Amino acid sequence: MATGFPILTLEDIVPLCDPSEITKAVQDALIRHAQGKTVSPPPVQLEFPEAQGDCHIKTGYFRGDRYFAVKVATGFYANPSRGLPVNDGVTMVFDTHTGTPVALLRDAGWLTSWRTAAAGALAAAAGAPPGACTLGIVGTGHQAQLQAEWIAEHLNMERIVVWGRSADRAEALASALCAKGLTAVAVASIQELCAETRLIVTCTPSASAVVPTQAVQAGTHIVAVGADSPGKQELEPSLFARASVIAVDDREQCLHHGETSHALRERLLVASDVVLLGDILAGRAKGRLSADEVTITDLTGIAAQDVAMASLVLEKMQCRRDLDR
Amino acid sequence: MATGFPILTLEDIVPLCDPSEITKAVQDALIRHAQGKTVSPPPVQLEFPEAQGDCHIKTGYFRGDRYFAVKVATGFYANPSRGLPVNDGVTMVFDTHTGTPVALLRDAGWLTSWRTAAAGALAAAAGAPPGACTLGIVGTGHQAQLQAEWIAEHLNMERIVVWGRSADRAEALASALCAKGLTAVAVASIQELCAETRLIVTCTPSASAVVPTQAVQAGTHIVAVGADSPGKQELEPSLFARASVIAVDDREQCLHHGETSHALRERLLVASDVVLLGDILAGRAKGRLSADEVTITDLTGIAAQDVAMASLVLEKMQCRRDLDR
Repeated sequence: MATGFPILTLEDIVPLCDPSEITKAVQDALIRHAQGKTVSPPPVQLEFPEAQGDCHIKTGYFRGDRYFAVKVATGFYANPSRGLPVNDGVTMVFDTHTGTPVALLRDAGWLTSWRTAAAGALAAAAGAPPGACTLGIVGTGHQAQLQAEWIAEHLNMERIVVWGRSADRAEALASALCAKGLTAVAVASIQELCAETRLIVTCTPSASAVVPTQAVQAGTHIVAVGADSPGKQELEPSLFARASVIAVDDREQCLHHGETSHALRERLLVASDVVLLGDILAGRAKGRLSADEVTITDLTGIAAQDVAMASLVLEKMQCRRDLDR
Repeated sequence: MATGFPILTLEDIVPLCDPSEITKAVQDALIRHAQGKTVSPPPVQLEFPEAQGDCHIKTGYFRGDRYFAVKVATGFYANPSRGLPVNDGVTMVFDTHTGTPVALLRDAGWLTSWRTAAAGALAAAAGAPPGACTLGIVGTGHQAQLQAEWIAEHLNMERIVVWGRSADRAEALASALCAKGLTAVAVASIQELCAETRLIVTCTPSASAVVPTQAVQAGTHIVAVGADSPGKQELEPSLFARASVIAVDDREQCLHHGETSHALRERLLVASDVVLLGDILAGRAKGRLSADEVTITDLTGIAAQDVAMASLVLEKMQCRRDLDR
């Protein structure tokens, strides 16, 4: 069955994706997004309550660029009991001049996982307090592991502490990280985690706050990754009242359904309090003003990241082909 | 490059798609949608002003069914000058229990074209005045031709009159229809078209009204297909004030960006004036009350149709495979 365009499987995609190139592409995407150079309608979410599943669809393009992408990412949380991974997904790439399909990236959700980890690493670097050398990971899943690995590498962290609602899963994640040559331990409580580190990444599917404001030390930077759709929450909203810098990947998304939305609804901030992570990365806004303040970055995931990933894969594929000639 | 799921090209799909089965599937989809048995977030539209292009993304599923679909349909109106068709598109099908991709339908936009033509035929039948035997087609493009063919077949019309802003293209469409064994003529003006028929289908990409209210005869049924996104319009809004039945494929979409939206904005109707085409098809609402009233059906295209098309293709594919064993 000839398709008229290339279909890349995960096996094809992995060798094309270098973490440092992904991080650069995601940084560029966040900056261009902050500068209004992207076109991206609000993301679509489809819920499957009976199957404990959801599906996020994001689409967009960079003005003047060649490709637009439609990214479909699924998360079905009962899949492990069927022997299937929670996450799956595909990205379809089209030509912005003709609408013609250009490629199908059958990445099984990994492009989304990587661009999310890359954004986490960039956000961590943008707000980490001086001298932070221990990373706190709240959550024990697939994305928690990726965040730990990417941030440890990107910020050269010495040590990782892990906490999750399941102690067994926290131990398993710490072991998995140690097996990768990192120094990681599970801790028994969120309070203990907060006491050990001033750089915390939350990546749980929680529907209520798991990080108590009182436990958070002065000078802590929190990157909130988990709340990417209505109903999800990881931080006590009062933490926003303590924060001197609140950065977001996208203003509308974060104020609508990100971690920030809960604080907005409780009137602990106003919309104009948030700055764009892309502006911080571009040096047009500050990520941190002093060593002892609390800062928060709220990531919901934006279409610009997905377009950047798809474009990166296609460019690298093209380079390989040119080299093979 | 193994993909792990079937990719069907247009060549694979065409033999699986019988017009009467498509019409039945679309009728069922419209009825289930009217009965609240579908889950479908609002459609997404991406605009490409420099390329005169747009992209519609629709997604959804029938509660309890096996598949959900993400349908991407593009229309790039400068493509013919590049030797490319205006329309293209793909449909991705996923499992509602696991989120796993099930198939990619590389249908080049034809599934959208067919389901739109099928809805037009169903809408025409649901409101046509008694004894209508001449069909009026406003528009000269790809969808205009399909509407003419499908309605002529479904309602056994004797004659088709065609009008478009380009007289040459109207002649070309009439010739193309004659070549298919139909009786068709181009007429010189929209007034002439309205005088010749009381069953009119509009399918243009117009941004302003092309059908004057005064020209429309008593007893006319109009199916408005063209206005499927903000900024498009084919009818003078005052026609809605004359209409005794206003049917829509989807209440929110039609009131937001269908033909009906213009009349709503001009306060020529209120939201509760519209009935669902699916309710008419199910016999739960009337499509016409008397022979001399004006009736309008506004079609914007709904995700339920796309899911129904994808499911039909997959079921037929499965049947073929079973037969081949």
